[in-house]
Amino acid sequence: MEIMEVMGHLVCSQRVEGLGHMHLRILRNNKGKRLVAVDPVGARQGNWVFTASGSAARFGCPNPSIQTDLTIGGIIDNWSPDD
Amino acid sequence: MEIMEVMGHLVCSQRVEGLGHMHLRILRNNKGKRLVAVDPVGARQGNWVFTASGSAARFGCPNPSIQTDLTIGGIIDNWSPDD
Amino acid sequence: MEIMEVMGHLVCSQRVEGLGHMHLRILRNNKGKRLVAVDPVGARQGNWVFTASGSAARFGCPNPSIQTDLTIGGIIDNWSPDD
Amino acid sequence: MEIMEVMGHLVCSQRVEGLGHMHLRILRNNKGKRLVAVDPVGARQGNWVFTASGSAARFGCPNPSIQTDLTIGGIIDNWSPDD
Amino acid sequence: MEIMEVMGHLVCSQRVEGLGHMHLRILRNNKGKRLVAVDPVGARQGNWVFTASGSAARFGCPNPSIQTDLTIGGIIDNWSPDD
Repeated sequence: MEIMEVMGHLVCSQRVEGLGHMHLRILRNNKGKRLVAVDPVGARQGNWVFTASGSAARFGCPNPSIQTDLTIGGIIDNWSPDD
Repeated sequence: MEIMEVMGHLVCSQRVEGLGHMHLRILRNNKGKRLVAVDPVGARQGNWVFTASGSAARFGCPNPSIQTDLTIGGIIDNWSPDD
Repeated sequence: MEIMEVMGHLVCSQRVEGLGHMHLRILRNNKGKRLVAVDPVGARQGNWVFTASGSAARFGCPNPSIQTDLTIGGIIDNWSPDD
Repeated sequence: MEIMEVMGHLVCSQRVEGLGHMHLRILRNNKGKRLVAVDPVGARQGNWVFTASGSAARFGCPNPSIQTDLTIGGIIDNWSPDD
Repeated sequence: MEIMEVMGHLVCSQRVEGLGHMHLRILRNNKGKRLVAVDPVGARQGNWVFTASGSAARFGCPNPSIQTDLTIGGIIDNWSPDD
């Protein structure tokens, strides 16, 4: 799993049905690249989280056939990116 | 999921049956690389979209055994690549 | 899916049974790296093709449990790498 | 599988149920990037381990629908990163 | 599939059960990075091989739920890395 920072949420009114009503967050990885993740844990802007990708991202959702390849797995209690 | 820009559509008369009649779009990722994605949402040139890869790309299609590893998941309402 | 150029075919007399009698091609990606792909469409040297990776590569073959992680999905009608 | 060094464990009180009670380790890959992995073998700080990613990461756990995309597969007996 | 060179075998007495008695090889990819792969074909040091990753790596083994994300698919008859 990778460690990323939560930047905000994604507004996207036109999307596939396969995502259901899952919340979408914009994350930033260690190279500064912004990614979109499904959030089942309720993360907030500024939180450091770890994410699961691939088929594991789907198994983190109530329905494993949901169309996500990146899902937040947990909020890290204490994290400094320069440790 | 990744955030990409729609560049146009792909003309490809000789292709595997496993893609059915799905529309193919050419996308550009954040490094300028061009990729090919299945489009179930009807995105247009210039739209910013997010994409699902891996097995999630297949679950975004009506038939989950379709041969795609990249599928558009939604059109982003407002996006600036330099935010 | 990624866009690659066909360089030639791969001679490999000692290989796993899981690939059956599928033809193997050597492709070159946009960074010049050479990769090996299963070819169900009959691509020729110099063709520009798009490829599916991951589990989608297996679903492009007659038998989805075949041991491939890269399969040619189609031959692009017109393509210039510098467009 | 990739070869990584164990840096420590991850404290994360708020996490998805899909990870059960599996131990989480912080690893460092060959580029210095820190990643989070499930540990079924009991690795310690300073150990060199190899890791499985993707769906193989899930099959390394008692329950293959667990939400991990990186799992430690074994502790390497002797390893020098500069060999 | 990727093309890699066999560097040697991996000694790893403490490992997950999910790998069974499969032989593990150390490979070097085109960037010089060393990786660990399951070897069902009996490759030797100095051989050039191609490898399957992801779920295809598992289907190259007798048991498809084995915990590998990289498996040797065949030994290439003639290969020069600078062709």
